Amino acid sequence: MESSKRVLISECEQYVGKEVVLKGWVKKIRQLGKVGFLLLRDRTGTIQCVLEQEQNQLKIETESVVQVTGVLVDTEKTANGVELQVRELTILAEAGPLPFEINKNHVKVGLDHLLNHRVLSLRHEQINAIFTIQSMFVKGFTEFLTTEGFTRIFTPKIVSQGAEGGANVFTFNYFDKHAYLAQSPQFYKQMMVGAGFERVFEIAPVYRAEEHNSSRHLNEYISLDVEIGFIDNVEEVMEMERRVLQYTFQYVKEHCPNQLDLLKVEIPVLNNIPKMTLEEAQQLLKDKYQKSSPEGDLNTEGEKYIGRYIKDKYGSDFVFITNYPRTSRPMYTMPNKENPALTDSFDLLYKGSEITSGGQRIHCQTELIESFKEKGLNPSEFTTYINSFAYGMPPHGGFGIGLERIIMKFLNLGNIREASAFPRDCDRLIP
Amino acid sequence: MESSKRVLISECEQYVGKEVVLKGWVKKIRQLGKVGFLLLRDRTGTIQCVLEQEQNQLKIETESVVQVTGVLVDTEKTANGVELQVRELTILAEAGPLPFEINKNHVKVGLDHLLNHRVLSLRHEQINAIFTIQSMFVKGFTEFLTTEGFTRIFTPKIVSQGAEGGANVFTFNYFDKHAYLAQSPQFYKQMMVGAGFERVFEIAPVYRAEEHNSSRHLNEYISLDVEIGFIDNVEEVMEMERRVLQYTFQYVKEHCPNQLDLLKVEIPVLNNIPKMTLEEAQQLLKDKYQKSSPEGDLNTEGEKYIGRYIKDKYGSDFVFITNYPRTSRPMYTMPNKENPALTDSFDLLYKGSEITSGGQRIHCQTELIESFKEKGLNPSEFTTYINSFAYGMPPHGGFGIGLERIIMKFLNLGNIREASAFPRDCDRLIP
Repeated sequence: MESSKRVLISECEQYVGKEVVLKGWVKKIRQLGKVGFLLLRDRTGTIQCVLEQEQNQLKIETESVVQVTGVLVDTEKTANGVELQVRELTILAEAGPLPFEINKNHVKVGLDHLLNHRVLSLRHEQINAIFTIQSMFVKGFTEFLTTEGFTRIFTPKIVSQGAEGGANVFTFNYFDKHAYLAQSPQFYKQMMVGAGFERVFEIAPVYRAEEHNSSRHLNEYISLDVEIGFIDNVEEVMEMERRVLQYTFQYVKEHCPNQLDLLKVEIPVLNNIPKMTLEEAQQLLKDKYQKSSPEGDLNTEGEKYIGRYIKDKYGSDFVFITNYPRTSRPMYTMPNKENPALTDSFDLLYKGSEITSGGQRIHCQTELIESFKEKGLNPSEFTTYINSFAYGMPPHGGFGIGLERIIMKFLNLGNIREASAFPRDCDRLIP
Repeated sequence: MESSKRVLISECEQYVGKEVVLKGWVKKIRQLGKVGFLLLRDRTGTIQCVLEQEQNQLKIETESVVQVTGVLVDTEKTANGVELQVRELTILAEAGPLPFEINKNHVKVGLDHLLNHRVLSLRHEQINAIFTIQSMFVKGFTEFLTTEGFTRIFTPKIVSQGAEGGANVFTFNYFDKHAYLAQSPQFYKQMMVGAGFERVFEIAPVYRAEEHNSSRHLNEYISLDVEIGFIDNVEEVMEMERRVLQYTFQYVKEHCPNQLDLLKVEIPVLNNIPKMTLEEAQQLLKDKYQKSSPEGDLNTEGEKYIGRYIKDKYGSDFVFITNYPRTSRPMYTMPNKENPALTDSFDLLYKGSEITSGGQRIHCQTELIESFKEKGLNPSEFTTYINSFAYGMPPHGGFGIGLERIIMKFLNLGNIREASAFPRDCDRLIP
């Protein structure tokens, strides 16, 4: 086997008339009498390779990894206008029998089967595109925030106290201490604002030991967390979220045009996100749709109706629901100045599904301790968090976005597991 | 309290003669008879604020959060050439008594105390700079890899099998199944190469339940993981690591000049990294320093001597140690073609301390199964990993870098805990 510099399939048009080395997977192979056609796939695309003589005698299984050397020639028979006349073909890794046919336009296999054979199913262009987009979504998110003066932080996932007060957490033994897996970096991102960084973000896994096996929940997911110091009000937080989303989707549009085409999706317009108080939303559900909501929140059905209403009325895929009551928000949430039974908080719905919770936080230590007590929580169990408010904590607020959830809604996936390379749910711990 | 757009301290020079609103922490305050001087700190720097009349009567504690409004004037008395004549001062959050004096050039407090009061200690400019540099280091690392065609991946930290075979893992109950916290994304990053992404990286926490309480180990740390498909040999992996490090350090130099000045560090030269086989290194230690090494590895002392030797001889802070024996490397490591008792693997030492393990991996399924057996491992306990080699896995290799470890060495910190905002060790689970 000769070894010379590999050319990517996307670069082939530049090398017409030249001999090149290509490497990739055998997407399809058709070996006729004198001539064979091998469709080669690498991470950048596919190309037709023409096999003759001894090259065409080799037994080659679909999805095997091969290296082909040959001359690139113009052709009118393929989409990219070139094909490779193979001079030498080496099998780098042979594929065995496949559990299902992967090289179809639409894979007709159940989700469980796809997830069980993830390394194979991820090779399908449409499935692969999901994760290329996800990667670029996170990159765009990072770009915007860095430019806006945010510092990327890394906070522990092994913690001694659940941020929301201890329910639905995975627990384990940590050198004879009782530890939890963090449900959210909430406390830590606030502390990093107070530690002088002012504006911080984190991209990291969070853990929820919730038993529901729904199409929109995972037990381990990536949380895109943002916290902003020195805000004047919660509107600033919502405006920052609108701007980061607007930039991020635009970034994806610029960097993943082929993937977006393949998945037939367009990026949402985010020039303005309509706002509605929870009370207004609940009233609307009642008056217009005869639907009631649970106390202090919307249920899945309510989110759908509100999403559809906003889309029809304003053409927006997004809507902020604001002013949740104190009873349904965590103890660190800032009460509303005009109506202290409400909070300066919000959820963001995207295509009728919640993708964010956010709000302004209490920054005065005395007020915070009071709020813990009102929620029936013992402040002495949260001393490291509460202590960090003793040295001057600026007014601040923030939000978190579930990465798999927003990608699922963006790409119109039917199940959140499709937006996770290796999802974790109540039943699934492998692969 | 009036609310108008905040100006950052770093922007003040542009606003001389104008009235501005500044917000930040009170770094120092000196209230004399008629006039007071308040040194204000925000995330971009410090500025002197001059207080007169009623502004100077307010009782203000150090580290309180304040908003000051006033006119910026030229002065020769301060480093940045401007100061603020305060017209209005509002305390946004009052600081209580501090557990130690933070606003000194050198904080004379033990590390434990600093970590216990992390929100306060992180405000010290030199400590703060560590994490700004860390944030930019990760950004530079991401930039380079994205440009080189790598996809950022997210893989589960809740796993059913430890990558290195089950020792030193945190275990817990996952919906009545036995689960582990991932020690490394090793299996998953290899699988994502085979899933068609070819070149992948991950930035995520990993977990080691090791009992040592040393100055260079953490039980939870951030691993910068890279895996590269379609390589011809392990040298390509080492060259990729050299290039990503060279780019990343240069990126930090460009984006954190003030922080590097403050910490008095320079970025390393990475035009070429010397290489030495483990055997050569061990021979050198024996001949030149009369030091013996453990079988198949270097110990901490050996790493130090080799690091010093390379620095003296080649002027390099880095050295690759190559060709570790199969007995001391994991089962997925590619054996060396010429000497099958050795492997195509490497460690990277930086200033005499290991920061990376890497190598080429076995990509042939039969060979992989054989290697598991030779190590006394039961392949049937690793089926999802091994199965993913049945559908054509390209030749590949990669490496992992401990983020806190490389930052510690770069910034010449005495303890790895200084490179973690909220470190986790055998004793420390808070804050």
